[in-house]
Amino acid sequence: MHPLTQHIQKITLNREIGDDAILPFFETKTFKKKDILQEEDKRCLLYFFVIRGCLRLFFTDHNGAEQTLQFALENWWMTDLNAFRSGHNSAYTIQALETTEVMAITARNYEVILARFPVIESYFRLVYERAFAASLLRVRMISRMPKDEFYELFKSKYPEFIQRLPQKVLASFLGFTPEYLSELRKKQSKRKNNS
Amino acid sequence: MHPLTQHIQKITLNREIGDDAILPFFETKTFKKKDILQEEDKRCLLYFFVIRGCLRLFFTDHNGAEQTLQFALENWWMTDLNAFRSGHNSAYTIQALETTEVMAITARNYEVILARFPVIESYFRLVYERAFAASLLRVRMISRMPKDEFYELFKSKYPEFIQRLPQKVLASFLGFTPEYLSELRKKQSKRKNNS
Repeated sequence: MHPLTQHIQKITLNREIGDDAILPFFETKTFKKKDILQEEDKRCLLYFFVIRGCLRLFFTDHNGAEQTLQFALENWWMTDLNAFRSGHNSAYTIQALETTEVMAITARNYEVILARFPVIESYFRLVYERAFAASLLRVRMISRMPKDEFYELFKSKYPEFIQRLPQKVLASFLGFTPEYLSELRKKQSKRKNNS
Repeated sequence: MHPLTQHIQKITLNREIGDDAILPFFETKTFKKKDILQEEDKRCLLYFFVIRGCLRLFFTDHNGAEQTLQFALENWWMTDLNAFRSGHNSAYTIQALETTEVMAITARNYEVILARFPVIESYFRLVYERAFAASLLRVRMISRMPKDEFYELFKSKYPEFIQRLPQKVLASFLGFTPEYLSELRKKQSKRKNNS
C-alpha cells in the first residue's frame, strides 16, 4: 500500500479507502537537496505530502535573511494554505533540505477528493486539528520560553529534526544564532559526559 | 436560525442542516465578565462556540504572570484542543472578558455529530484549515516582526479586538508591557492628528 493511503487509514482508522481511489489525484515528484518547490510571490498551485525526505517553509525578512517557520518530514503536509485555497501568491518559499519525494495535488483536485470521499474530509479535519493544536504549543514556546528550555522541549518532541536538519536552518527556526546553538549543544554534551 | 447553524451554513455553503439537527448536541451557557470557563490543570471536558461576548485563553508562566495566547469573539471556537481530544487536563485557563454566551459541546457529542453529519466534518475541516493558516501568520508575526509593525498588522486584521480588549490583556497578547502599548497608541494618535 502507498504511504499516503497508509497514512489516511492510520489517522482515520478507516480501512475502506485504497490506492486506486486516491492516487490518481496526485502527481509524484522528486526534488534534489536545495531544490525550490514553491517560490515566494509566485502563484501557489500545489499542496505537498512528503513520502521521504524533508522540506522547509521560509520567508525572506527585511534584512534579506531567510526565516524558517515550518518543517515537513515523512507523512507531513506542506503548502502556504492561505494562498493555496485562495489562488493567491505564496507568502513563503518551500525548499527541499534533502533528496525529497512528494505527492503533489492541485487545488481543484483537493476540492474533488474532499467532495467525493467522506473519509478524506475526516482525514484532513484530523490533520488540521493536530496541526492547529501543535501551532498553539509553538506560539506558547516561542513567545515566552527561555531559549534553552525551548530547545530542550523541541528536542524531546521532535528528536528526528535535531538529527537531520542543517545547523543553520535549525538555528533560524529556533530563533537562535548558529553560534548560540553550537554553544548550547557543547554545554549539553559536556553535562552528559560529566553525569 | 441559531447563530451556530448560520455559521455552519455560511462556512460550508450548505443550506441543508438546520437547528433541529445540531442544537440538541449543545448546551447554552452564559458567563459573567471574569468568570472562568476552564481551569488550568483540570480535565478539559467542553469545547465552546461564542454566540456573543469574548473569551481569552491563557497560561500562568514561571513568574506567575498570565500570558494570553488566543481570543475568541462571536463565531469563534475555543478549547485546549489537545486536552479536549485526549481527555487530558487543560494546559490553559479560559476566561470571559465580557458577559459571554456560548454553546458548549462534550467530546463525546463532538464525535457523534462529526460521524452523523458529513457537513459537520466539512465545517470543522474548514474551521481548522483557516485557524491553522492564521496561526502560521501569527508565528511569523511574533517571531520576527518589530513590535510596532506587529501592532499595526494586528490592528488592521482584527480592529474589533483593539476596541474591545482590556489594555493589560492586549499588551500581554502582543508581548508588550502595558506602558509600551500606551506609548505606541499615543504616538499613533499624535501622528493622526498631525496629518
